[in-house]
Amino acid sequence: MFEEKLKEFEPIFYPKTIAVVGASPNENKMGSLWVKGFISAGFPGTVHPVGSTGGTICGLNIFPNLRLVPGEVDYVVVCIPRESILELLDDCAAKKVKAVHFFTAGFSEMGEEGRKLEEQMLRKARQGGFRIIGPNCIGIYCPESRIPCGPSPRIGASGSIGFVSQSGGIADKLMEVGIARHINYSKGISFGNGIDLDASDFLQYLAVDPKTSVIGTYLEGTRNGRRLFDTVKEVAKSKPLIVWKGGRTEAGAQAAMSHTGSLASSAAIWSAMLRQAGAIEVQNLEELSDTLLIFQQLVSWKGSNVAIVGGLADGGGGISVSASDICVESGLKLPSLCSKTRIGLTKLLGEVGSILRNPVDVSQARRLGSSNLFQAMELVLEDPVIELLLIQEDIDILLTYFSWEEVKGINNFFTELRSKQSKPLVVVSPPGSAEPERLNIEQILLEASIPVFPSMERAAKAIVAISRYYSLG
Amino acid sequence: MFEEKLKEFEPIFYPKTIAVVGASPNENKMGSLWVKGFISAGFPGTVHPVGSTGGTICGLNIFPNLRLVPGEVDYVVVCIPRESILELLDDCAAKKVKAVHFFTAGFSEMGEEGRKLEEQMLRKARQGGFRIIGPNCIGIYCPESRIPCGPSPRIGASGSIGFVSQSGGIADKLMEVGIARHINYSKGISFGNGIDLDASDFLQYLAVDPKTSVIGTYLEGTRNGRRLFDTVKEVAKSKPLIVWKGGRTEAGAQAAMSHTGSLASSAAIWSAMLRQAGAIEVQNLEELSDTLLIFQQLVSWKGSNVAIVGGLADGGGGISVSASDICVESGLKLPSLCSKTRIGLTKLLGEVGSILRNPVDVSQARRLGSSNLFQAMELVLEDPVIELLLIQEDIDILLTYFSWEEVKGINNFFTELRSKQSKPLVVVSPPGSAEPERLNIEQILLEASIPVFPSMERAAKAIVAISRYYSLG
Repeated sequence: MFEEKLKEFEPIFYPKTIAVVGASPNENKMGSLWVKGFISAGFPGTVHPVGSTGGTICGLNIFPNLRLVPGEVDYVVVCIPRESILELLDDCAAKKVKAVHFFTAGFSEMGEEGRKLEEQMLRKARQGGFRIIGPNCIGIYCPESRIPCGPSPRIGASGSIGFVSQSGGIADKLMEVGIARHINYSKGISFGNGIDLDASDFLQYLAVDPKTSVIGTYLEGTRNGRRLFDTVKEVAKSKPLIVWKGGRTEAGAQAAMSHTGSLASSAAIWSAMLRQAGAIEVQNLEELSDTLLIFQQLVSWKGSNVAIVGGLADGGGGISVSASDICVESGLKLPSLCSKTRIGLTKLLGEVGSILRNPVDVSQARRLGSSNLFQAMELVLEDPVIELLLIQEDIDILLTYFSWEEVKGINNFFTELRSKQSKPLVVVSPPGSAEPERLNIEQILLEASIPVFPSMERAAKAIVAISRYYSLG
Repeated sequence: MFEEKLKEFEPIFYPKTIAVVGASPNENKMGSLWVKGFISAGFPGTVHPVGSTGGTICGLNIFPNLRLVPGEVDYVVVCIPRESILELLDDCAAKKVKAVHFFTAGFSEMGEEGRKLEEQMLRKARQGGFRIIGPNCIGIYCPESRIPCGPSPRIGASGSIGFVSQSGGIADKLMEVGIARHINYSKGISFGNGIDLDASDFLQYLAVDPKTSVIGTYLEGTRNGRRLFDTVKEVAKSKPLIVWKGGRTEAGAQAAMSHTGSLASSAAIWSAMLRQAGAIEVQNLEELSDTLLIFQQLVSWKGSNVAIVGGLADGGGGISVSASDICVESGLKLPSLCSKTRIGLTKLLGEVGSILRNPVDVSQARRLGSSNLFQAMELVLEDPVIELLLIQEDIDILLTYFSWEEVKGINNFFTELRSKQSKPLVVVSPPGSAEPERLNIEQILLEASIPVFPSMERAAKAIVAISRYYSLG
């Protein structure tokens, strides 16, 4: 139903020509950083620096005025102080640009004067026939068209996750966490004060964007609650929509007013609205990225029965107890294994020192050899009642009993097990005293489409989120 | 009131001679691993391997029988199968040992037969005048006397945190996390099935141990609830006692029965009991280690008013909003800064693009220079209403704007700021795409007594725990 957005937003996400207003030969000026960012990210279109100084930056001529830039300009990035902005918007109209992104801050978040300026800007955009992104934001991130996230040249792999963030800092961090955890984005948008295009517009776009299959969003508030509610409801019908609402508390709402000039409404109203709309509510950045990761890696997984395996090296008893608590409290199902599986496990692991229920404590496998461990895990995964295998491995503990080659061997077994059958594997790998090795293993697993979480709580919460979504959906 | 425990447990934590029963010339046998562990940890006393094979291990003669070991033996580690255990206990009595630790598993956690065997073992201990630790556990950890944690040679720095864990795996992980996060232990105990010495005994010991100032514990259940409750109440009167109860859910309780043969009682009863006793309840390993860390680093800190600073590089707005939500929801107080502080911040940072309330978004400092950043942070910390400074820094984001040397310079400023005044600093440093650098900075901060947490939630929860403890206490 939002198909018209595809065409309208084409010049925003796939611009042929970008002008950066506020560039100068000084490489450390904000406008110059934006120019450098586009160049070093490998943006394949044309970048035109614009700035009153003239001269060059990154070997490109700096045009003293936007009107002097030759040819068409799709997209303008603005880094000049707010005092010069109305005049620039006249230039944008004259130049028939499609969209203007204001990195510049100091508007409604600063008070009444800024709010009035925003009204004038919006009028000029309407008259000039172009759209505004921001002000007070880092704008567009699109790995596919080599548009980096903000004025830094940071850019990750292209993927299927779209995000919309009212905060630039949170957009930045989502992108960095994405690089670390292989959460790959189709598009990201930070829209700041959102005086023209806001959360609703970008959510509508992502809902119809064929490159986007899952959407995450950080919102502080809106000037048009009804429209946002209707949008969330429509968008959530077509794609999983994960929402983190900032400004839930009065202190948070006050900070939101200073940040993006947003009127945040009560947490209870938002939660009720999101539930009614079929969106998935999360409470912080960790939970947002965890949920995006599991939706990306477990593509449309429909299930609820989980088997947990712990004690790969030793001492899986405490993990079995605490994982049971945590998973059950989170809402996961840990069904009993069928008798065939239990008999097989007894043969492979022996009774003493192992726990052959769900969770399965495979502690005895170290003594018996990795072949027994591997067969035991295959047996659990083959149990007809089990739909997902959740493995706890503590790399530091493993390394006190196994060599690094053996630890890699165990994890290679996980990646092979994942690839040769259809049930998902999820790994919990808590931080500890062997961080370089843990991070190395995490990358191996992520590359094999095995999502990795730093704690049982976070894994359980993410699995519950996807389980509920596709079971109810 | 538990002073008698000090003398009684002296041979357990400070043994002069240890015998390891179940050693063999085969270096990979469990008993041999224990011998190797004591030697490589630098245990200064005498270690005697005992095993039916004879021969040598680590250059030490293996005695075929405990009775043949020359001189006195304080402490015995047992790694032989349960079938030979009763005979060994007669040897222990003949040898007048003080304590026997059973690493061996396969007792009440396996069913009725094992439970009967435990009863016989206990009778023999009473008759023989020695104490039993376990069975089914990794026993004692004491860095001061160079007793490593379990059969691995893992050992961290000596410190003031004592822990008691029913699970060996969780004891192991607490120790590894301790090494990573500079949580330094005085003593650690994993007591497994606890047929003789159990949680109550060791908690009583830690309560009077002069080397221990804070106590953490992981418990699954007990055979003597009344005694444990009375103990917890007494211990919590003298030192901060942080309790993680495993087996809260029915699934967890069932796993606990298979793990340590414990009857876990309901979560609600435990929570009420702990609250009444003045203990601090936590829900998982992360929260347990976070709470131990803050109690260790903020020694007796009494306060509740926190100032948050974010946006060290850019985009502190979203952090300000979400940190407000999280801290207020956790129960932290974020008081308004006094007008002198706010005027000073306006001079240092300017109004546009910064948020000069609490949380303080110092985004503009990057443009203005680190001197302004440092002065702004000092100003906030000097505000008379502020009792603790909570700093959010994302190392990956910092590194997109600053050089590595500059990032280290900012963190060196934090450590200097910490050392030259009395208010604590706490840092939130979330994982991301620059993990080696993040871990490096974390170590620098931890060495300077600045606790570091991977998320605002975890920092806020830990601060609330210590604030409530010393405010109410």
